[in-house]
Amino acid sequence: MTDTATNAPADVHEDGSPERLAIDTIRTLSMDAVQAANSGHPGTPMALAPVGHTLWTKFLRYDPAQANWPNRDRFVLSVGHASMLLYSLLHLAGVKQPDGAPAVSLDDIKQFRQLSSKTPGHPEYSHTVGVETTTGPLGQGCGNSVGMAIAERWMAARYNKPGFTLFDHDVYALCGDGDMMEGVASEAASLAGHLKLSNLCWIYDSNQISIEGDTDLAFNEDVGKRFEAYGWNVIHVDDANDVAALTKAFEEFRATQDSPTLIIVKSVIGWGSPRAGSEKAHGEALGEENVRLTKEAYGWPTDKNFYVPEGVQEAFESAIASRGVPLREAWEATLQKYRTEHAELAKEVDAIITGALPEGWDADIPTFEADAKGVASRDAGGKVLNAIANKMPWLLGGSADLAPSTKTDIKGEASYEPSNYAGRNFHFGVREHAMGSIAVGMALSGLRSYGSTFLVFLDYMRPPVRLSALMEVGTTWIFTHDSIGVGEDGPTHQPIEMLAMMRATPGLDMFRPGDANEVAAAWRAIVETPRQPAALVLSRQALPTLDRSKYASADGVKQGGYVLADSDGTPDVILIATGSEVGLAIQAHERLLADGVKSRVVSMPSWYRFEKQSDAYKESVLPKAVAARVAIEMAGEIGWDRYVGLAGKTIAMSTFGASAPIAKLADKFGFTVDNVVKVAKEVIAA
Amino acid sequence: MTDTATNAPADVHEDGSPERLAIDTIRTLSMDAVQAANSGHPGTPMALAPVGHTLWTKFLRYDPAQANWPNRDRFVLSVGHASMLLYSLLHLAGVKQPDGAPAVSLDDIKQFRQLSSKTPGHPEYSHTVGVETTTGPLGQGCGNSVGMAIAERWMAARYNKPGFTLFDHDVYALCGDGDMMEGVASEAASLAGHLKLSNLCWIYDSNQISIEGDTDLAFNEDVGKRFEAYGWNVIHVDDANDVAALTKAFEEFRATQDSPTLIIVKSVIGWGSPRAGSEKAHGEALGEENVRLTKEAYGWPTDKNFYVPEGVQEAFESAIASRGVPLREAWEATLQKYRTEHAELAKEVDAIITGALPEGWDADIPTFEADAKGVASRDAGGKVLNAIANKMPWLLGGSADLAPSTKTDIKGEASYEPSNYAGRNFHFGVREHAMGSIAVGMALSGLRSYGSTFLVFLDYMRPPVRLSALMEVGTTWIFTHDSIGVGEDGPTHQPIEMLAMMRATPGLDMFRPGDANEVAAAWRAIVETPRQPAALVLSRQALPTLDRSKYASADGVKQGGYVLADSDGTPDVILIATGSEVGLAIQAHERLLADGVKSRVVSMPSWYRFEKQSDAYKESVLPKAVAARVAIEMAGEIGWDRYVGLAGKTIAMSTFGASAPIAKLADKFGFTVDNVVKVAKEVIAA
Repeated sequence: MTDTATNAPADVHEDGSPERLAIDTIRTLSMDAVQAANSGHPGTPMALAPVGHTLWTKFLRYDPAQANWPNRDRFVLSVGHASMLLYSLLHLAGVKQPDGAPAVSLDDIKQFRQLSSKTPGHPEYSHTVGVETTTGPLGQGCGNSVGMAIAERWMAARYNKPGFTLFDHDVYALCGDGDMMEGVASEAASLAGHLKLSNLCWIYDSNQISIEGDTDLAFNEDVGKRFEAYGWNVIHVDDANDVAALTKAFEEFRATQDSPTLIIVKSVIGWGSPRAGSEKAHGEALGEENVRLTKEAYGWPTDKNFYVPEGVQEAFESAIASRGVPLREAWEATLQKYRTEHAELAKEVDAIITGALPEGWDADIPTFEADAKGVASRDAGGKVLNAIANKMPWLLGGSADLAPSTKTDIKGEASYEPSNYAGRNFHFGVREHAMGSIAVGMALSGLRSYGSTFLVFLDYMRPPVRLSALMEVGTTWIFTHDSIGVGEDGPTHQPIEMLAMMRATPGLDMFRPGDANEVAAAWRAIVETPRQPAALVLSRQALPTLDRSKYASADGVKQGGYVLADSDGTPDVILIATGSEVGLAIQAHERLLADGVKSRVVSMPSWYRFEKQSDAYKESVLPKAVAARVAIEMAGEIGWDRYVGLAGKTIAMSTFGASAPIAKLADKFGFTVDNVVKVAKEVIAA
Repeated sequence: MTDTATNAPADVHEDGSPERLAIDTIRTLSMDAVQAANSGHPGTPMALAPVGHTLWTKFLRYDPAQANWPNRDRFVLSVGHASMLLYSLLHLAGVKQPDGAPAVSLDDIKQFRQLSSKTPGHPEYSHTVGVETTTGPLGQGCGNSVGMAIAERWMAARYNKPGFTLFDHDVYALCGDGDMMEGVASEAASLAGHLKLSNLCWIYDSNQISIEGDTDLAFNEDVGKRFEAYGWNVIHVDDANDVAALTKAFEEFRATQDSPTLIIVKSVIGWGSPRAGSEKAHGEALGEENVRLTKEAYGWPTDKNFYVPEGVQEAFESAIASRGVPLREAWEATLQKYRTEHAELAKEVDAIITGALPEGWDADIPTFEADAKGVASRDAGGKVLNAIANKMPWLLGGSADLAPSTKTDIKGEASYEPSNYAGRNFHFGVREHAMGSIAVGMALSGLRSYGSTFLVFLDYMRPPVRLSALMEVGTTWIFTHDSIGVGEDGPTHQPIEMLAMMRATPGLDMFRPGDANEVAAAWRAIVETPRQPAALVLSRQALPTLDRSKYASADGVKQGGYVLADSDGTPDVILIATGSEVGLAIQAHERLLADGVKSRVVSMPSWYRFEKQSDAYKESVLPKAVAARVAIEMAGEIGWDRYVGLAGKTIAMSTFGASAPIAKLADKFGFTVDNVVKVAKEVIAA
């Protein structure tokens, strides 16, 4: 494509209809905002303005003044780089913050991509009201949308009663070629088809353009056929500007009862601009002259920027509010009545909406008796999870085909299947990545979701784990088989760097509890902080359950790190450990005591929490005066220098593991009482 | 399924044919090895023994005595947990180590999953001769196989000449339900279909069983239809025991000229055992009684373990060697003649085989003049890459649809497309994960491959990056847009934890060069270590090119960290930085000097290399006597304590970033000369 206005199709000029006026307002706001920032993605908002306009004004069940109404339809912009489309829609729809101020004002749009503005480069959940999820990393919005659709079906199955339809919303996701290429979206689509999520509609913007050029360079599969293979209903719209066809497609989606729907919309990126149909319209400002030419082609005033013609905003808001407000009001009336007629269930609904914990939620959490043989922390985790889940029906989740190993099934509960959306045990299949983004989507809809797999497979689902941390969404990640303790499965299955990966992720609270009672304390801490993304790292192998009458209470887990065992006076050496190495540290401690060495053991299940403690507390646990310190962890050593200092030592992994029974590995890599005692004495002597 | 022998189908008993004898040998060796280890996966080898036997004895072009013959057909066991299938095949085929000893002896099989044995839990590349790639993490073998098929097509296109067919091998991958569910395999399959890789054959073991139970729990899509949508030829074999149908399917694959082939084989996991068809046959030993019952059902001696009937090994080896040895010998003769008739190309082929560098490979690497405005390190990276690629045609790769941004195109070279397999610029599409596993596969076939994307999207491709490190395969990962320097795209696109993730990964050499000349030095170090997996981390924004007449030479990059700028005598403070922060450290250094503070700047592009230096060298760079140290890096702070100690400080990111122009972000997060100087003085004063 050449950079001249001659590419503009004949019908680019607006026809004077109110609809077209609104659509071109979205287009020109997007162009102007990107131009003002001299940074951003104008082409997709320009192409998809008719899709956004049709969906929002004619279909979306949404009250602009109550953007958090629980039964609203969800609109997920999986193509997060097209953020100006969403900001334009939020502006024109008159979406309000809780305080009544606009979620996105015209001034906010003028501040596109500036520090602290409401309009960052990619949409950020909780930063801008009306943004349902943070998007940008491709494919994640797709997965999130499946999670939201799953959550809706679950809440409908559990809470809807005759005469009380509390949940019947739909979930729309706007996706691009990139989404269709990402494996996470394939995984999520396969599962959505399997689950027959008829409340889910993906709109696939097929614009034939990728950053490197035409999609024919790398992507010429038959996407529609692929989705049919997944069990989706597939609809084709040949022109994104064909509002009638778009309307018909959304109507067909709404009428489809037994499968999710994919609407494949052919569009022209940067529509109407000199760069129309070119990758140049994707990721940079069009340039002032191109903006002028495009406005001219649209029949738009060229002397005004950020121009919203009179009446456009009001008409848009009215279209969505006239549908959404009565629905929302009726819903509130229904809920009010429901509180009387289904009081117990209503309590659950209210708790889901507010994030409150049910009374007595922790009453059944077991205390584990001292036991030298002990129990694998994954087994303890399963027991504690079940004790809480029993009191908190919206705590639910599953595994990427490893539930018998991760011990995350809720006993006595059904599987979540198309024939039973009230099930609480989720079979995500061998799809860790989709599991992650689905669990995030479920949490965004108010459920306390969890996803589980082996720790090494965190690698397969890093993007949603990161996004949970970035969004501050309280999903719980359960990772078992947490070290070379995996044994015979060998180095491909033995995590080394995964603890460091999570510790390096801002805002993620990772617990690696040392025995069954620390597992219980960790789960307690997780449930008590509903907006805190957390990971629970558990062992495959049995860990001794420590005698808490002899050692400190596991309540210390809340502080992230605590003195578990000590001797009188200032210790000669401090042993710091997490997880399965806590028991080893205790054994070494006892040996050191017998040898006349004053030793202290610090259990440090959560660095994240420990770092948040006061300096005084930290000093009480790790006194500066004691420089002789040994950290013990069956994982990579990176980071431990913070706690052992230049004078201390870390017994950790500096290589990958190996395939062998665990005792042989412990011996090979130095995780033995003998070696810990030896290193402790060396550190003291140094 | 109940745990009794009554499930055995009528035809379980062997028919006395030599073929069946060999197949049951594979089955019983697998059962016995898992039973002896009391750990492992017996069910899939039992199910797929006929597939392995048919492929190896009738089709695979392979010389057991020359397992590294470059034009051998590749067999990838993507279902790595079924390692006993591969070990049995390697044993029966008589595959030899270079020293003539068996790659896998019967004794090795008896040592299954024991420390240092040749038969670890999952197959490990370079550990066991004949293992083409390390597998276990599902989907990776699929991606690797696409990379191997790509490499074969490229080498054929470049090196085959009339009368000289040096490359015409096929690549087979054995995949399971888990592979089919993993997104990485979907991505790789889509690209393989796009590229019409007719030398690629995936065998999909459709056994309807996953770890959590029947695949109907989570996976009932139409896999065949999906692959047709990708452009694959799909063949169905209804019974894994139907050797005639398997033979026909492989023949059809060999005859297919314009697309990859998927053979969907229905199988029964744990075939013939009391646990046949049950998830219980998947991941644990069958138990002694079940082993006995199964052998009985097969008509196998029940009193012998690890029993290989007379003649079975010899017949198997003869079947494969009688085809493979003449082919390998003819190939060597061809190559010998090729060395005369196509001497220049032959040099390349020899270098690919031996891993040698071409003469003068670094002659064109530019030296960059001092320049205060400077150049983005991604731009410098592109220039250096091109200078090397020009001399080294088998250095090739591409990007996950970001080449215009990562600057990784080789100028003047064509795209790798179905119409031109000689192209060197790869368009992987928005498929980071597949790009990773494909690049590894290409490297396994001898090419110097690279893959590139934004650093934050390392999250999408962690498994192959990890496997490259575990396998010690010299793929180069090029990650640009390496910090909050990304600016307006905001926190979804700004890496924080990615440097730590790579530093925590054993064996991965990550470089974050500080200016254009450090980029050149890093590329030099990477190319000089062909078996060393490496990552090159580059900036989006311009970095000043330092005046090397004033500061130290960039050759110090080879040591990982070096004194870049210094003052006379013992410094008062040491500033340590990487990448874009090196220039900032230099500015702060000059300011400190002006203020009368003796300062040193250490550039530390590779921790991995620095850690390998002698204690004396490390002391010369970071003398213990100087405790006042400041590390500066626009990334998470984890790990820097190792170099700054308890007395130092780190200027780093403790949160995610934000969307804004870079200057605003630098100010907000403290990456300014003023702040570095202030912190340096605080550290000195402390």
